[in-house]
Amino acid sequence: MTEPINAPAHPLHDTAYRGFASDNYAGAHPEVLEAIARANGGHQIAYGEDVYTAELQRVLRGHFGEQAEAFPVFNGTGANVVSLQSMLPRWGAVVCSTTAHIHTDENAAPERVAGLKLLTVPTPDGKLTPELIDMEAWGWGDEHRAQPLAVSITQTTELGTAYTVEEITAITAHAHSLGMTVHLDGSRISNAAASLGVPLRAFTTDAGVDVVSLGGTKNGLLYGEAVVVLNPSAAEGIPFLRKLDMQLASKMRFVSAQLIALYEGSLWLESASHANAMAARLRAAVAGLDGVTLTQETQSNAVFAIVPPGVADRLRESFRFYDWNPATGEVRWMCAFDTTEADVDAFAAALERELGRV
Amino acid sequence: MTEPINAPAHPLHDTAYRGFASDNYAGAHPEVLEAIARANGGHQIAYGEDVYTAELQRVLRGHFGEQAEAFPVFNGTGANVVSLQSMLPRWGAVVCSTTAHIHTDENAAPERVAGLKLLTVPTPDGKLTPELIDMEAWGWGDEHRAQPLAVSITQTTELGTAYTVEEITAITAHAHSLGMTVHLDGSRISNAAASLGVPLRAFTTDAGVDVVSLGGTKNGLLYGEAVVVLNPSAAEGIPFLRKLDMQLASKMRFVSAQLIALYEGSLWLESASHANAMAARLRAAVAGLDGVTLTQETQSNAVFAIVPPGVADRLRESFRFYDWNPATGEVRWMCAFDTTEADVDAFAAALERELGRV
Amino acid sequence: MTEPINAPAHPLHDTAYRGFASDNYAGAHPEVLEAIARANGGHQIAYGEDVYTAELQRVLRGHFGEQAEAFPVFNGTGANVVSLQSMLPRWGAVVCSTTAHIHTDENAAPERVAGLKLLTVPTPDGKLTPELIDMEAWGWGDEHRAQPLAVSITQTTELGTAYTVEEITAITAHAHSLGMTVHLDGSRISNAAASLGVPLRAFTTDAGVDVVSLGGTKNGLLYGEAVVVLNPSAAEGIPFLRKLDMQLASKMRFVSAQLIALYEGSLWLESASHANAMAARLRAAVAGLDGVTLTQETQSNAVFAIVPPGVADRLRESFRFYDWNPATGEVRWMCAFDTTEADVDAFAAALERELGRV
Amino acid sequence: MTEPINAPAHPLHDTAYRGFASDNYAGAHPEVLEAIARANGGHQIAYGEDVYTAELQRVLRGHFGEQAEAFPVFNGTGANVVSLQSMLPRWGAVVCSTTAHIHTDENAAPERVAGLKLLTVPTPDGKLTPELIDMEAWGWGDEHRAQPLAVSITQTTELGTAYTVEEITAITAHAHSLGMTVHLDGSRISNAAASLGVPLRAFTTDAGVDVVSLGGTKNGLLYGEAVVVLNPSAAEGIPFLRKLDMQLASKMRFVSAQLIALYEGSLWLESASHANAMAARLRAAVAGLDGVTLTQETQSNAVFAIVPPGVADRLRESFRFYDWNPATGEVRWMCAFDTTEADVDAFAAALERELGRV
Repeated sequence: MTEPINAPAHPLHDTAYRGFASDNYAGAHPEVLEAIARANGGHQIAYGEDVYTAELQRVLRGHFGEQAEAFPVFNGTGANVVSLQSMLPRWGAVVCSTTAHIHTDENAAPERVAGLKLLTVPTPDGKLTPELIDMEAWGWGDEHRAQPLAVSITQTTELGTAYTVEEITAITAHAHSLGMTVHLDGSRISNAAASLGVPLRAFTTDAGVDVVSLGGTKNGLLYGEAVVVLNPSAAEGIPFLRKLDMQLASKMRFVSAQLIALYEGSLWLESASHANAMAARLRAAVAGLDGVTLTQETQSNAVFAIVPPGVADRLRESFRFYDWNPATGEVRWMCAFDTTEADVDAFAAALERELGRV
Repeated sequence: MTEPINAPAHPLHDTAYRGFASDNYAGAHPEVLEAIARANGGHQIAYGEDVYTAELQRVLRGHFGEQAEAFPVFNGTGANVVSLQSMLPRWGAVVCSTTAHIHTDENAAPERVAGLKLLTVPTPDGKLTPELIDMEAWGWGDEHRAQPLAVSITQTTELGTAYTVEEITAITAHAHSLGMTVHLDGSRISNAAASLGVPLRAFTTDAGVDVVSLGGTKNGLLYGEAVVVLNPSAAEGIPFLRKLDMQLASKMRFVSAQLIALYEGSLWLESASHANAMAARLRAAVAGLDGVTLTQETQSNAVFAIVPPGVADRLRESFRFYDWNPATGEVRWMCAFDTTEADVDAFAAALERELGRV
Repeated sequence: MTEPINAPAHPLHDTAYRGFASDNYAGAHPEVLEAIARANGGHQIAYGEDVYTAELQRVLRGHFGEQAEAFPVFNGTGANVVSLQSMLPRWGAVVCSTTAHIHTDENAAPERVAGLKLLTVPTPDGKLTPELIDMEAWGWGDEHRAQPLAVSITQTTELGTAYTVEEITAITAHAHSLGMTVHLDGSRISNAAASLGVPLRAFTTDAGVDVVSLGGTKNGLLYGEAVVVLNPSAAEGIPFLRKLDMQLASKMRFVSAQLIALYEGSLWLESASHANAMAARLRAAVAGLDGVTLTQETQSNAVFAIVPPGVADRLRESFRFYDWNPATGEVRWMCAFDTTEADVDAFAAALERELGRV
Repeated sequence: MTEPINAPAHPLHDTAYRGFASDNYAGAHPEVLEAIARANGGHQIAYGEDVYTAELQRVLRGHFGEQAEAFPVFNGTGANVVSLQSMLPRWGAVVCSTTAHIHTDENAAPERVAGLKLLTVPTPDGKLTPELIDMEAWGWGDEHRAQPLAVSITQTTELGTAYTVEEITAITAHAHSLGMTVHLDGSRISNAAASLGVPLRAFTTDAGVDVVSLGGTKNGLLYGEAVVVLNPSAAEGIPFLRKLDMQLASKMRFVSAQLIALYEGSLWLESASHANAMAARLRAAVAGLDGVTLTQETQSNAVFAIVPPGVADRLRESFRFYDWNPATGEVRWMCAFDTTEADVDAFAAALERELGRV
C-alpha cells in the first residue's frame, strides 16, 4: 500500500565538523546514548512515575540536598518558565539582567505563557548585584506596579562570566530580606561549578537559591533539563504547571536516564571542565593577536571579543559562530564538551591569518 | 572536588514487562535509537537549520504532498497547541469532541497557553460529524461569542475508533463551507492508516485537512512529534509560536532523525499495524468471555470493555491498564508496537481466570 | 484654532421607546444620576481610596455581613473574571452550566484573560445541582486534568429561573465538601431576592457562597458592578487582579456612588421587584394565547416562549427582543426597571394581533 | 423584608477641596453630566449599536478624518491594551519608553492580558526618537526574539512634555520604514493639542500615527476613553478584542455621550488649555523659589520639581500630590480642568512658607 521512501545514506552530516557557534550545536555524549539504550525496552509508567525519574531524585539530592525535588522538562525555556511561574503569583514580576536569556531569547515566553513581567536592569558583565536589583525592587503593595517578587540570575551568565559563591549569597540574602525569592537559570550550571571549583550546592542550595533550572542539553544531552526546587516553600503547583506549560514528557524515563547519566558520576563536571578549558585555550591563543579586543572575562566556555570589520564574516566561511553585537563587531566563540584542542588551534590559526589580511 | 555518586546497576527496570496501559509506556524502537546514534557527532546548526530537519521535509512531503511543511516539536500537547494557535486569531474557538485529548488531557493548555476556547460536542464514538459540528458552529460576527473558526478531530480517536476517508472529507467540506479550517490530532495517525489500509495522505491532504499534529512518541520514538501544515494559507507564524510556546528543540536534529527513521520507510506502518493486530487479537480473545462487554469498535490499538466490579483491580496486580469510566466499570486496554502475542494471550488468560472468580 | 463641530439637537433618541430586548437597553435610574451629581466636585483620591468607596463597604456589609469586602469594577464580565481568577490557581477549572454567561457570552474572557478552564454541564433550567456538578467535579490531583476547584452559579439564571435558598445551600455544602469554592454571578441578584422574598444575604452569605459578582448595570446604573468577597479565605490578590484585568476605575467614586444609591436604601429591591412584576404581567397576558408555548418558569424579569414562525420577526418591527434559540423559535422577552404596565399591555396586544395573522 | 440602610448625608466629601495629585482626582465637568442626563431615558441598543455611538463616529471623524473609527472603552489601560493587541500578532513586541504608562502603571496588563512584550528604552524627557527606537527595533525574523512590530508613544508624556508634530512625524516615518506601526497613548491628548496650538489630527492622522488611545477621563469625564483607528489596515479584530478584554460597555450610549460632550465642541480644548495654564502659572510661581529645582519642561498640565527633604511631606498635610522619585526628592504637581488660580496661588504660597522653614 505504501512504498518505502528512498532512504538516503546516513549520517547526513559531517561528523568531524565542529564550530564555535554554540554548545547547542554539539550532539550527545556517548555515555548519554548508552544510558538511553539501557533504559529502553519493556514498559514503564509514563509521565514521571517511572523508576528512572525516581532514581534521578536520589542522584540530584546528592548534589542539592535532601530537600531538593526535581521535575524533568524538555528544554531550557520550559525550565525557566515553569520555575518562575511556580514561584510567583499572577501579579508577580521578575528582576533580571537585560542580557538574561529569559528576556532576550525566549520570544517573551515568560510574559506570554506565564503572564509574568520582567523588570530588567543593565549589567555590563551579565551579573546582578543587590544594588542593581534595587533599581527595580520597589513598589510592593502598589496595585499599579507588577510586583517584584523574584530575582532571576543566570549562572554562568550569557556573557560567559560566573558569579562567585559570595556574590550569589549576597543576592539571595538581599532578595529574601525584601520578601523575594531567587531563581537560578543554570543552563550552564556545570560550567560554573567547574569554573569556581566548588560543588553545585555551594552556589545554589548553600547560597540560598530557591529554584534552579538545571541544564542538560548544553552539556551533552539530546534534550532535557530539570526544574529543581531547593526551597519547597518557594514553589507551588509544579506538576500542574509543567503539564499545562506543555513540558511534561510522556516517556519521561528517557529524560531522567540522560540526566542520571550526566549527574550521577562526574560526567557533568568533566564535560564542563573540558569545555571551559577549551575556551581558556582559545582565549590564550587569541589574547595577544593584534586587532582582537577581549570584552568579557572568560570564566566558562565562551570567549567574547571584538574583531576588525570583515574578519568575522571571512572566518565564518570555515567556522560557524555568532555575532554578539553587530554594532560594535563583538562576536561570541563558544566551546562545547566535544571541542578538541585541535579545533581550537585551527580556529586561532585561521583567525590570525584573517587578521593578517585586514 | 566532587565524589561520583554511587551508580546503581543498570537497567533499573524489568525490560521484559509490558502491560496494557498506554502506548506511552513502551520505549523506543531499536531503529529509532540507531537513527539517533547516526545523527550524533559533529556540530549541526541548532533550532532546526540542520540537515536532518531539511531531510524530514523531503520525507514528509512524500507522504503529504509538496506543499506540506513540517515543524518538529517535543510532544503531542505542544503539537496541538502550536497547530491550533497558528490557525486561529485571538478570538478563535475550536469545535471538538468532549472526549478530545485537547479537552480532557492537556490541563487546559489550549486555553491557558494559546488563549483558545474549546466548544465541545458529545460524541458517543469519539467522532464528530457535520451535524455534530453544527451544534457549536454558529454565531460568527457576534463579538460576545468566541468565534468557531476551526474544527479539531482526532484520528484515531481517543476511543480507538477511526474516521473513514469519507467521514473526514465530509467534515472538511462542511467546515470549509463555513469558513472554518480543520486540524487533525494524529498522535495515532499511523494506526489509522494501518486500520483503513490507505496512505496517510488519503485522509489528510487528500481529504482536505489543513494542519496535522503528526504523532511520533506513541509509535516508538523517545519523544518528538511534528506540526505538519498541509494548507499553507491556514496557518500563520508557526516558527514564532513554536518558540514562544516552548516547543523549539535546540538540538532539533535528534527529533528530526527519529521522525525520519519512523516515516522514511515503512516502520511507521509496520509498528502501527502490529499494535492494531495485537488489539484485534485481544478483542477476539475476550469478546466471548462471560462478563465482558465491549463498548467501542476496535479499529486501532485499543480495546474498550466493561468488566465486573473487582475484576479490573485484581487484574491490575499483574498488568497495568487504566479505568476509562469508573462509574460504569469501563476500562481501556491498549497495545503498543512492542506488544507480543504472548503478552496478549497471557492477559486474556488472566482475565478469564479473574472472571471465573466473580 | 479649532471650530466647534456642529452640535446636533439633543437627545438623539426617542426617550419614550422601550422594548423587551434586555435590561441593558434601559438607561439609568434618576436617583442614580442624582447620586453621581452629588459625588461630583472637588478632588477625591483616585483608584478606590475615596470616601464613597469606603461608604460602599459599610452599605454592602449591611447586606452581606461584616466580613464582606467589595471591589467595584466596570462591568459584569470583569466582575466574573476577577472573582474567578482570585478564587483559583493557574491550574484551576470552574464547573458551570452550559448556559452560563461566563461560557456563552464573554468571548472566552475567563479562558483568555484569566487562563481558566470551564467545565460545563447541561442544565435544562439553567440551574446546577450537586448531582450535575459531580459530572465534572472529579480528577483532583491528576495533572492532566484542569482542576475543578470552583463552582459558578448564576442567580437569577440566564433562563430567568431562581435558585431557592435550599438549592444554593445544597450546592455550597457539596462544593465545600469537595474542597471547591462557590461563585455566584449576581448580575441580576436583586431580581432573585425580589423573587424569593428574602434578603440578599439569605442566598449568599448565609447559604455559604464565597464570592459574589454583584450586579448594578442591569438594575439601573450607568455602569458598575462589584466583586464582593464573602469568605475572605476564598479569594486572593483582588486589588492586583482588578488592576491587571483592566477593571480598576480611576474615578472610582462614581462607581461607588452609584452602587450606594442602589443598595443603601431599597432602590435595588423596588427596581427589581418592578421588573419582575412586569415579566409576570407579561406572562399572564400571553400564557393563554394560542400559539405561545412558555418554555421556562418566570421567576424574575424574563419570559421565555416559543412562538410560530414569522411572528417574532414581525413583532420586532415594533418591539426589539432577541431570539433565544432560532432552531426552535424560542424567544426571550425581558423587562427592566423602567418597563411600564402600558409597555407590557401594548406588547401583549401586538403579539396577540400577530398570532391572529399566522 | 429589608430595612433601608441608614443613609448618610450627601455629599460625603468636601467639594471645595482640590489638590495637585492627579487629573484623575477631579470629578466630571458639568456639561458631561448634562450630556449623560440627556442620553438617559428610553431604551437604546446595548453594546454599541446605539445612536450616541454612531454620532460619536461623526464627531471624531471631524477631528481625525473620514477613515477614523472609534471604539469606546472603559479606561486608559483598556484603550492601550485593546489598541496594541489589535496591532500586533501573538509574537509581537512594542518599543516604548521606560517611563511609558503601559510599562510602569498597568501591572503588566499588556503582557498578561494581551501577551505582548514591551521593549523599553530610557528617555530622559519621556520622548522616543528614531535613534532611541533603534535600540530595540531589530531582530525581525529571529524566532527567539519577540518581534518589535509597533512603537508606542505617549502624548503628552508621563513627564509632562509634548512631542512636536515634527518629532512624531519623524517617529512614524521611521517606524513605517521598518514595517512597524505606531500607537499613541493619548490619555492627555487634549493637553498636547492645547500646548502645541494645533488640531488633534496634526500630530495623529496627519503625522502618520496608526492607532490612538483617545483620552476622556483625565479631561473631565466620569469614565470613558476610546480606541481610535486612524489607519484601518493597522488594526484587526477590535470588536472581538474589546469584548474579550472586558472593555465592552453594555450601556455604551453613556460612554459615547460623554465623549461627544467633550469632543463635539471645544470643551476638550478649553478644559485642557485651562489645566495647562494652571500648570504654567504654578511653574511661574515656584520657579524662582530658593530650593526648588524644576526637572522637566512644563508643556502640559504637570510640573516636576525637586524640593528639599521634608518639604513635600509637610506640604502634603494640606495638598495631596505624589512623589515621582523618592530617591531624588522629585515630586509631581498636576493640574486639572477644575484647578483654579486661587488653588495655584495658595499652593505656591504654602510651598514658599515650607521652604522658608527648611
